[in-house]
Formats: sequence, structure tokens, C-alpha cells
Amino acid sequence: MPRVSQDHLDARRRQILDGARVCFARHGYEGATVRRLEEATGLSRGAIFHHFRDKESLFLALAEDDAVRMADVVAEQGLVQVMRDLLAGGSAHPADWLGTRLEVSRRLRTDPDFRARWAERSQQLTIATRQRLLRQREAGNLRDDVGVDVLTAFLELVLEGVVSHLAMGLPADDLEPVLDLVEETARRHRTGTR
Amino acid sequence: MPRVSQDHLDARRRQILDGARVCFARHGYEGATVRRLEEATGLSRGAIFHHFRDKESLFLALAEDDAVRMADVVAEQGLVQVMRDLLAGGSAHPADWLGTRLEVSRRLRTDPDFRARWAERSQQLTIATRQRLLRQREAGNLRDDVGVDVLTAFLELVLEGVVSHLAMGLPADDLEPVLDLVEETARRHRTGTR
Repeated sequence: MPRVSQDHLDARRRQILDGARVCFARHGYEGATVRRLEEATGLSRGAIFHHFRDKESLFLALAEDDAVRMADVVAEQGLVQVMRDLLAGGSAHPADWLGTRLEVSRRLRTDPDFRARWAERSQQLTIATRQRLLRQREAGNLRDDVGVDVLTAFLELVLEGVVSHLAMGLPADDLEPVLDLVEETARRHRTGTR
Repeated sequence: MPRVSQDHLDARRRQILDGARVCFARHGYEGATVRRLEEATGLSRGAIFHHFRDKESLFLALAEDDAVRMADVVAEQGLVQVMRDLLAGGSAHPADWLGTRLEVSRRLRTDPDFRARWAERSQQLTIATRQRLLRQREAGNLRDDVGVDVLTAFLELVLEGVVSHLAMGLPADDLEPVLDLVEETARRHRTGTR
């Protein structure tokens, strides 16, 4: 396939994802009808579903997009930085979009296939977090009395709390010192006496 | 008002709340129609809305119910025990019900009045957590390098993560050691050198 065509396909895919994210954020998963997706992306349903099998696939592609972006931040700065970025209200993950992620909880709970597809996409974040922690441990920056798997699950659980908190529109201006505490919890303590 | 009548009213109120909880859990907030609430409670809409102004008030009464039950556990055993109870799958808060709590996130985010009513009801949990931590600090069981407000917000954030995790039907069998870590994070460390 000639390069220009691939570029075109990639750009079209990006156009669909960007429009769909806004649409899902504004109307929720159920409310993002095909007609609204057409309006938000500026493309016909034919064009949209040429790139994505169905609405579910489109939504899951956005979840994967999130996981990839977050995994990039994790690799450089760790998962707590992802949470700090969420608190700062980065445009990629406004509260409306986080809320839409929550709204699919029933589907995730009751539809094993959907859950498996979601988990597959989210896994990249877990892997990136685990790798980062392993590197930090090698560098001597991590506490060594708690396993990396436990620390990974701890950080992911706090991230889920942050997502839920923001999605519910709760005040977040008091969470910075909480994230400092979360970060410190994973670190090696300087006295070395514990 | 004679005592027997108050008992009767209380029992009726309890009957409505118990049925409504099952109905909201099964069908979600939107799906819990008046007809389904009638079926689930075994009472007419007239009887239901004699006790609760509207569906929103009924839902918020259940949220308050949760907060009161959790606050009781917090007073005796702390907020981490509330999380352990959730993990253990106590019948009062099955994943379906937790999911319904998440489903109202859009409403919480976009309807300031609903958010204020929800916050008022949840506040009892925050107060109970704060009081428990203050008692623990006085008893010398709490770390003293982090404020009680930060520790309260930390524990509540982790609770939000647990609720979200369970509501999404994610595997929770690896979370016990994470909660051990959370509990330890709030405690005074034995060496006393930090």
C-alpha cells in the first residue's frame, strides 16, 4: 500500500476517534447515537464503520488510546504523574469523558466479551506501570518490603479512585497532597531503618 | 404519634428501601421505572411516594443508608475495614448496586442540586473517618507527619477506587495485600525514626 494512502487512512482514523471522544463525553455511551457520531466526526456512518466494526469497537479504541497515552507518561514519569495530569484537567481526559468510562461499568460487569476486550486494551497501562516500578526498584528508589505486583495494583486502585472522583464532579483541589502521600508510599524511605 | 404507628411507618420505609435497592441494582438508575419499583417493593406508587418525594429522593436515601452503615463500621474498625467488607462481597453492597452508584456520575457532575444532596448524605462517612483518625492519632497509632485531612482524603480516594473496581466486575482477589499497604500507610511506623 502506498505511503500516502496509509497517511490518509491514519488521518481519517484520528478524525473519527477525536470526534467520537467528544461525542461520547457529551452524550454518554448510550446517548452517542450513530447520527450524533456522524455529526461529531463530520463523516458518514459508512466512513466511520469502514474504520471501526461497530460503536463498541470505536469506544474500545478510545480506551486503548487512553491506555497508550497514559503508558507513555508512566514510562517517563510514573503512574502518579498520570493522576496529577488528570487532576490538572488535561484536555484529553475531561471529566465528561471519564464519566462515560464509568457509565460502561454495567456492560463491563455483565458482558464477559466486552470486559475481555476492555481488559486487553487496559493491560498496556499495567505493563508500563509494572516495568517502571521494576526499573525504580533496580535503581534503589523503591521500597523493597512490598512486591512490585502489590505496588502496581495499589497505584492502579488509586487511579481508579481519581477517575471516579473526577467523573462525579467532586472537588479535587485537596488531592495534590494525597498524591504526594501515594507517591511516597511506593518509595524507599531515606532512613533505611524499616 | 403513637409508637405502634411510627413502628409501622419505619417498617414500611425499610420495605421500600430494601426493594428499591434490589431494583436499582438490577436495572440501573434509569432502568428502575416506577412500575419496576412497585414490583420490587410490593407496594403501589402511591405508597412509595408517600414516603419518598420522588425517585431521586429514594435513591439518595439509599446512598445515605450506605453512608450510615459504613460510618458505623468506620467508628469501630476504620475505613479500610469498609473496603475489606466490600471485597468480601457483603450482601448490602453487591457489585450491581455499586455500579448503579457509578451510573449517576453524569447526574452528579451536571446537576449541582443533586450533587449537593448526595454530598450532604455522604458527609457522614467523611466525618466518621476523620473522627476515627483523630482518635487513632491521640492513641499514638497514627503517623504524625501527614495531616488527618490528607489521610482522610487518601482513604476515601482508595474507597472510590475499590467501588469503581468492583462495579466494573474486575478481579478483586489480589486486593487484600493492597489494602494492607493502605492501612499501613496511615499507621505510625514502629521504629519511630521517620
